[in-house]
Amino acid sequence: MMRIGMLTSGGDCQALNAAMRGVVKCIAHSGEEVEFYGFKNGYKGLIYGDFRMLTSHDFSGILTKGGTILGSSRTPFKTIREPDENGLDKVEAMKQNYYKLQLDCLVVLGGNGSQKTANLLSEEGLNVVSLPKTIDNDLWGTDMTFGFQSAVDVATQVIDNIHTTADSHGRVFIIEVMGHKVGWLTLNAGLAGGADVILIPEIPYDINKICEAIEARDKRGSRFTIIAVAEGAISKKDAKLSKKEYKEKMANYKYPSVSYEIAEAIQKKSGHEVRVTVPGHMQRGGAPDPYDRVFASRLGAEAGQLILDKEYGYMVAYKNREIVKVPLNEIAGKLKYVSPDASIIKEAKMLGVCFGD
Amino acid sequence: MMRIGMLTSGGDCQALNAAMRGVVKCIAHSGEEVEFYGFKNGYKGLIYGDFRMLTSHDFSGILTKGGTILGSSRTPFKTIREPDENGLDKVEAMKQNYYKLQLDCLVVLGGNGSQKTANLLSEEGLNVVSLPKTIDNDLWGTDMTFGFQSAVDVATQVIDNIHTTADSHGRVFIIEVMGHKVGWLTLNAGLAGGADVILIPEIPYDINKICEAIEARDKRGSRFTIIAVAEGAISKKDAKLSKKEYKEKMANYKYPSVSYEIAEAIQKKSGHEVRVTVPGHMQRGGAPDPYDRVFASRLGAEAGQLILDKEYGYMVAYKNREIVKVPLNEIAGKLKYVSPDASIIKEAKMLGVCFGD
Amino acid sequence: MMRIGMLTSGGDCQALNAAMRGVVKCIAHSGEEVEFYGFKNGYKGLIYGDFRMLTSHDFSGILTKGGTILGSSRTPFKTIREPDENGLDKVEAMKQNYYKLQLDCLVVLGGNGSQKTANLLSEEGLNVVSLPKTIDNDLWGTDMTFGFQSAVDVATQVIDNIHTTADSHGRVFIIEVMGHKVGWLTLNAGLAGGADVILIPEIPYDINKICEAIEARDKRGSRFTIIAVAEGAISKKDAKLSKKEYKEKMANYKYPSVSYEIAEAIQKKSGHEVRVTVPGHMQRGGAPDPYDRVFASRLGAEAGQLILDKEYGYMVAYKNREIVKVPLNEIAGKLKYVSPDASIIKEAKMLGVCFGD
Amino acid sequence: MMRIGMLTSGGDCQALNAAMRGVVKCIAHSGEEVEFYGFKNGYKGLIYGDFRMLTSHDFSGILTKGGTILGSSRTPFKTIREPDENGLDKVEAMKQNYYKLQLDCLVVLGGNGSQKTANLLSEEGLNVVSLPKTIDNDLWGTDMTFGFQSAVDVATQVIDNIHTTADSHGRVFIIEVMGHKVGWLTLNAGLAGGADVILIPEIPYDINKICEAIEARDKRGSRFTIIAVAEGAISKKDAKLSKKEYKEKMANYKYPSVSYEIAEAIQKKSGHEVRVTVPGHMQRGGAPDPYDRVFASRLGAEAGQLILDKEYGYMVAYKNREIVKVPLNEIAGKLKYVSPDASIIKEAKMLGVCFGD
Repeated sequence: MMRIGMLTSGGDCQALNAAMRGVVKCIAHSGEEVEFYGFKNGYKGLIYGDFRMLTSHDFSGILTKGGTILGSSRTPFKTIREPDENGLDKVEAMKQNYYKLQLDCLVVLGGNGSQKTANLLSEEGLNVVSLPKTIDNDLWGTDMTFGFQSAVDVATQVIDNIHTTADSHGRVFIIEVMGHKVGWLTLNAGLAGGADVILIPEIPYDINKICEAIEARDKRGSRFTIIAVAEGAISKKDAKLSKKEYKEKMANYKYPSVSYEIAEAIQKKSGHEVRVTVPGHMQRGGAPDPYDRVFASRLGAEAGQLILDKEYGYMVAYKNREIVKVPLNEIAGKLKYVSPDASIIKEAKMLGVCFGD
Repeated sequence: MMRIGMLTSGGDCQALNAAMRGVVKCIAHSGEEVEFYGFKNGYKGLIYGDFRMLTSHDFSGILTKGGTILGSSRTPFKTIREPDENGLDKVEAMKQNYYKLQLDCLVVLGGNGSQKTANLLSEEGLNVVSLPKTIDNDLWGTDMTFGFQSAVDVATQVIDNIHTTADSHGRVFIIEVMGHKVGWLTLNAGLAGGADVILIPEIPYDINKICEAIEARDKRGSRFTIIAVAEGAISKKDAKLSKKEYKEKMANYKYPSVSYEIAEAIQKKSGHEVRVTVPGHMQRGGAPDPYDRVFASRLGAEAGQLILDKEYGYMVAYKNREIVKVPLNEIAGKLKYVSPDASIIKEAKMLGVCFGD
Repeated sequence: MMRIGMLTSGGDCQALNAAMRGVVKCIAHSGEEVEFYGFKNGYKGLIYGDFRMLTSHDFSGILTKGGTILGSSRTPFKTIREPDENGLDKVEAMKQNYYKLQLDCLVVLGGNGSQKTANLLSEEGLNVVSLPKTIDNDLWGTDMTFGFQSAVDVATQVIDNIHTTADSHGRVFIIEVMGHKVGWLTLNAGLAGGADVILIPEIPYDINKICEAIEARDKRGSRFTIIAVAEGAISKKDAKLSKKEYKEKMANYKYPSVSYEIAEAIQKKSGHEVRVTVPGHMQRGGAPDPYDRVFASRLGAEAGQLILDKEYGYMVAYKNREIVKVPLNEIAGKLKYVSPDASIIKEAKMLGVCFGD
Repeated sequence: MMRIGMLTSGGDCQALNAAMRGVVKCIAHSGEEVEFYGFKNGYKGLIYGDFRMLTSHDFSGILTKGGTILGSSRTPFKTIREPDENGLDKVEAMKQNYYKLQLDCLVVLGGNGSQKTANLLSEEGLNVVSLPKTIDNDLWGTDMTFGFQSAVDVATQVIDNIHTTADSHGRVFIIEVMGHKVGWLTLNAGLAGGADVILIPEIPYDINKICEAIEARDKRGSRFTIIAVAEGAISKKDAKLSKKEYKEKMANYKYPSVSYEIAEAIQKKSGHEVRVTVPGHMQRGGAPDPYDRVFASRLGAEAGQLILDKEYGYMVAYKNREIVKVPLNEIAGKLKYVSPDASIIKEAKMLGVCFGD
């Protein structure tokens, strides 16, 4: 009899349920007798012993269901080694709950912070297998994360909708796309939506270049311009600031987000009326698309197989179209950025996309 | 040979093209010889003689296309009787262009302001037929406007997406829905999305009632609450202000929109973390849904028939599931509100929806 | 304490769960103490006492879920008064199970056959309230049934997809749409999808008229023709057959369905290659659209109110945009057809749609 | 001044327009002066000199548009070297039209047959660059073809819809998925849709294994079974037939397609009622999904770059997440099958999917 704990951690995304179903189906199908313990709301549930036993019934029909049936939370990556407000040693608490339940393995579905904690627990001696979850696609060690393609779909739908209204009214429109500190989501949704300008953190922008692109479109008779802006986009000027200077700037930042700063700058320079749309959390919500359902199911199955094979301390990952395992200690603390020299950037530029550089 | 002018005015919406296609197909199918003149960017095109001749080719394949192939603009409803910055008499200019092109009729697709101007032109002696366009569904004289149902679909999709993430994280989420001064869009999207709280302009809210609803959900074990807020929602307190007092309040309004004020109030009173999503313009963009395609096509066909019958001075409208004509002077300047006693409100309350009253 | 039985009967459709949720939410919200008994697989469950108790948990999150959580079956409308293969009197069995469970009311969600049985049980003295379910929209006594608009959406999506490939290849394409003996679904999906020819049971077709329409399109340079055919479409010739003659014809019918007969006839007469697509059951599957979610929720709430008011023997219905109650004995056994003189038919003809008449 | 011919050949699919837009945008953006000649309906247009000049206006707004603005046709791959019915030498005719128009290059968007003809023209001395188009994903030399992921989306949507109705009625449902002689589309849509049984040409099936899988589900209390069948699926028995024997069998084949044969066999063996849905051509129609829009745009840009670099005789392809060029003579006449040992098959089996082997 195996006893397996499972938790989903960090901002939720599409296909979390599909991935968990994959793990469970794989182990159930192996014939291995098994009990699943679902910790509620991420690591919180593991720290405070908040869990429920899961039956195969819980995993039935969830392949297409958005969110996570376990609940998630962002706490507490950075302070994981600090005691909580009641003096509880969180790492020790997680270990105790793991041992108390006599778990054979802990399955963690999470993004960067969560993988770091997964590695910590692995180093502390727990058997851990993790899966790469995030709409940001910024996880080091894997070509792709689940949730990403579904988020691209949502953000693209937003750009599509804005496209028709921008065209009707001859306006400049900014759509602010999620993605944390990296540009994958904005880049792909921008290309899919036919954005004229795409601004990502990895390529700091010069407002003058953006205005030139708008003017060039004006001259060609294009009544409107679509600008996809990553929430982490940064100007060339700001990119040169020291950490301290940047912190000071943001402390007094008067804009709700970078898109509004860009909108104001364009309006000032070019005279164009600029509108901003910030779709926000809807990008991580809703049902997973077929791509993510297949991808997360495959990852889940392979994670299940790792557990059956008692191969612990790994994240399942995607490399050159195959699912592989990557040691947790190799990925913890690293981010996967879009390289400004990537061929997709080169191709986007061939298509006439302006990156503001 | 008939000569027909056409313009789309005000904020764009889904199914504008479908409606124009309906008009053109109906007249073309009648065998009547006809020339179509499309004025660009709403009444602006009529004022400044900015138009292009349209052929049947222009209307091919646009049934499913969002936006408007003619372009639109919001200018200039309120100041229509005032001269422009060069001293041009705008009403006179529109009449002159109408007569210069020897038009038999002007077709106007628009919302409230546009219908008012359509009526003005009708009273000035032009032959006008209009169609009820708006995602707000606030046009007096018709049970339904085209664009509305498609906008309900978009707003519902946003709520659906937020639903999964709200559930995963156990959060209170506000989705701000368009609709101008009326609550049709928020009410329908809210019900379709299973919102727990729906706030519309026609039913001023009390923040305490909202917090009570959230608490009641907490007690029943519901980890999250979905609140659909109309952009025109107003508190009971503000509803009691005089026009002057309200204007003063809004002059110093520190929130980007009413949703943020509500979010802060809930956070303060209940301690819950509250997130706000403002989908904005995407609600009026994108392809029309099947309902709107059928509806706008039918309206277009009947508008075409009015023209063939030389019945001018009317807006085509929807009453008790039939398409009828309504005199333009009966609808100009009126708004169609949601009645707080409407059966849909009563039914929403039966379902447990909190309106904050 | 109230005890309420519930069943979904006949072909399933979208929004069945939404409607049941409406009933349950309404009664739960009223404060009335209540127990729900869900009979499995339609009347079968009532006949054979196959049920399970339902808690509010069962109705949580099902607003957007397709199908029916109770299961459905088509049996046994026509033979309801005949004993089953073991000699069981089915009507008596249903009554006994109703009384054994001490039910206060039975809620039936169903189409034509199911309403007839609901009326029978009502006449036998049971307290019955019913809801109008069917993608066919053929229920007498209501302007609209739930499931219909969602099915229009699916069928329209099919036509949209076929449209692009028909255009690319310059082909004549037939899409066979569901709808049983009436044309509502085909008519609406056909108009929404811009079909050139629409064939419905209520307007028997002449194959020559269809070929003329295709030729007329050829002459205008249209490379393709889209034909929406109701599964119940009938030729003028067949419409004139006596019941016996028609039965004989169908006994030796060599086509999988009427669309293939039409396709062959067009191919023979016009020389055009004709392709047939039969989307079939997918039209009744999948998530309900926002329109149906609102509509079914409203119907459910009003059905719940009827129960609270102890008003039995009614179907909730939609008339002139209000939800009303209609006596079960008024609707049983009647069908709501599309009138060939309906304004929507007139408008479709204005738009140039060929009905083959 | 460059002169570039372009044609789309074979069954149409999603993202053909997106790919052409990519080619055109890339070359236009390079500053090179260029004229585009669009041949109508595939190679037919090149053979018979049926073309039109294309301006940048033709490529505006087509990123999201299904089908192909050039039209397509399947003729005439196999008989390309034979004279037509008027004795015209087709290969010679294509060469003459190419030289008459003084083309610098011919761009071919097509699948297997079309690539073979592209190679033939290349060997005949024409400058050819091609792009990998097909929903089947069966092109040798590339990891992925455009159209494939969009077709997966459509087929998955069909399975999703059938899922709810299968569940409601407790039925066995077969969905027949396209894919020609390979199983890529069925495999991915089947996994995305949670199919219980997936039958692909590469893994011949044993009807007994399928019935065992259905029975096993019955025993676990699953009321329904979803079977995704590739149009090219073949039984173990048939797979052993000689070509001649198989031809004889198919000459007298009494089923509309393999799915109906399987349905009958299951019904006979297991007693289950089995329904078949054949979505057909809709799988290649409709708008491209975001994945395909990005992918086709990238391929188009790189094809444009090959032309600018005067690198002819290649198909642009996708290998290990990069766009590369593959010599036309390396890919002509080969098919890319799903390997029965592929990790995706292994993972599907871990998830409990039955392949009938």
